[in-house]
Amino acid sequence: MFYIIGLGLCDEKDITVRGLEAVKAAERVYLEAYTSILMVQKERLEAFYGKQLILADRDMVETQSDEILSRADEVDVALLVVGDPLGATTHTDIILRARALGIPTRVIHNASIMNAVGAAGLQLYQFGQTVSLVFFTETWKPDSFYDRIKENAQLGLHTLVLLDIKVKEQSDENLARGRKIYEPPRYMSIPVAVKQLLEIESIRQEGILSAETTLAVALSRVGGGDEQRIVAGTLADLAVQPEDVFGQPLHSLVIVGKRLHHLEVEYAETFAVDRERWRSVASGVYGCALD
Amino acid sequence: MFYIIGLGLCDEKDITVRGLEAVKAAERVYLEAYTSILMVQKERLEAFYGKQLILADRDMVETQSDEILSRADEVDVALLVVGDPLGATTHTDIILRARALGIPTRVIHNASIMNAVGAAGLQLYQFGQTVSLVFFTETWKPDSFYDRIKENAQLGLHTLVLLDIKVKEQSDENLARGRKIYEPPRYMSIPVAVKQLLEIESIRQEGILSAETTLAVALSRVGGGDEQRIVAGTLADLAVQPEDVFGQPLHSLVIVGKRLHHLEVEYAETFAVDRERWRSVASGVYGCALD
Repeated sequence: MFYIIGLGLCDEKDITVRGLEAVKAAERVYLEAYTSILMVQKERLEAFYGKQLILADRDMVETQSDEILSRADEVDVALLVVGDPLGATTHTDIILRARALGIPTRVIHNASIMNAVGAAGLQLYQFGQTVSLVFFTETWKPDSFYDRIKENAQLGLHTLVLLDIKVKEQSDENLARGRKIYEPPRYMSIPVAVKQLLEIESIRQEGILSAETTLAVALSRVGGGDEQRIVAGTLADLAVQPEDVFGQPLHSLVIVGKRLHHLEVEYAETFAVDRERWRSVASGVYGCALD
Repeated sequence: MFYIIGLGLCDEKDITVRGLEAVKAAERVYLEAYTSILMVQKERLEAFYGKQLILADRDMVETQSDEILSRADEVDVALLVVGDPLGATTHTDIILRARALGIPTRVIHNASIMNAVGAAGLQLYQFGQTVSLVFFTETWKPDSFYDRIKENAQLGLHTLVLLDIKVKEQSDENLARGRKIYEPPRYMSIPVAVKQLLEIESIRQEGILSAETTLAVALSRVGGGDEQRIVAGTLADLAVQPEDVFGQPLHSLVIVGKRLHHLEVEYAETFAVDRERWRSVASGVYGCALD
């Protein structure tokens, strides 16, 4: 059996009991180290499972899937991924490959930011499509996310924006010289994300995002106990907060849609940088009837 | 501390290790028996936790939250809910109440159908807003879901449709006589859901849903191992399957949107009632380039 097991949101204790049992029973356990970023060290997972883990980076999961799947028709093999295994199509390939090889597969689900974003107090029912925001460079500012946010906004829906992570990047020099030396990972911060969003608004000028009148909620390490940070405000509010207000990466951002319900406003108010402004924009601009 | 702990998708082993530790350490543990339906008996959970559970029905969570929260500032109290605790605003009230009482709260997240729907092989990024479909009666056929599906469809997005459950219903006679006798729970089946969807289409005639050319995926007991069922086809295909094809409740249905990717088609093809028709509608109607 080939298991793909979601590790959930934060650390070694977010695995499910079923997932833990599968890990303990597996002959080989791979730890995927790319689709997201682990918040715990591999060693800590190994100590908790009482088991060695084999690191599987992007190349390996994509191009050496047969190695991972080797003998999985006879013994149990597990691939651990952060969040839920089927959040994106990233893992469809390896499951299709397993099927083609006649290997039975089983997915063990877990929480991911796609549902845990409910922690902001915004109803999951009211979210439209999710978008990703990548780091802009001087010459490359992909803006298709803007059209997606616009589509959601026109329906009054919230948008979950997933912020970019750069791992295993090479400097131009190292790349040119073929040296496999990688830069430290980079995580997009909330102020950078807000800056990029407003930069595209200022180019497109379609009135979808506004520093003063668009409400947003920043989230980091949801479910991570004391490390969890949820910060709500206008885009302008979020742009000027010191980065440490937003906690440790990974960060996500919700652009609040106009179908906002007063219970959502009330719940998220606890997280607001400026409660009075949060309420006044929610009632004055979003038209939410508050007490 | 007041914990709200997600039980995940299926049975007692879907709780996270963190959640299990919190249950074991809590002085009182409530089990919510309404927002969704447990697939395991309370007794099985109790045996697994080594702990008595207090059943909390809708009335109790909504109107007697102070009883649940009693002394939660001094001892640990846990409320167990199926799926993830913050999928709907159902639990916002009790958390707001806890905050008002100065009781620290902690949410322990888990998988819910809102993210596990990825099991169908459809990308979560490509889902629009989620809708609920309630049982029609002769005189009451609420159709606002149709507008939501339409909004999603016009953007080419998938729609997750959550099917109705009726629990603690009273017959007219028992209601009239004030007898607290409840009918057995009812779960909407996939064929009934499809019938209702097409009934509204035939009234509204906006060409959003079509028996022959709208693709859909039915899901039940996602993550439930051998009990999991995923069935794909046109709405007409799904309408005529015997109910046992769809497995045990709860059921959900995905209306497939036009932004369909060929990898999604390929993955879900395994679940198709009729693979050839699945592919021909995906390519001919949805315009998906397949091999």
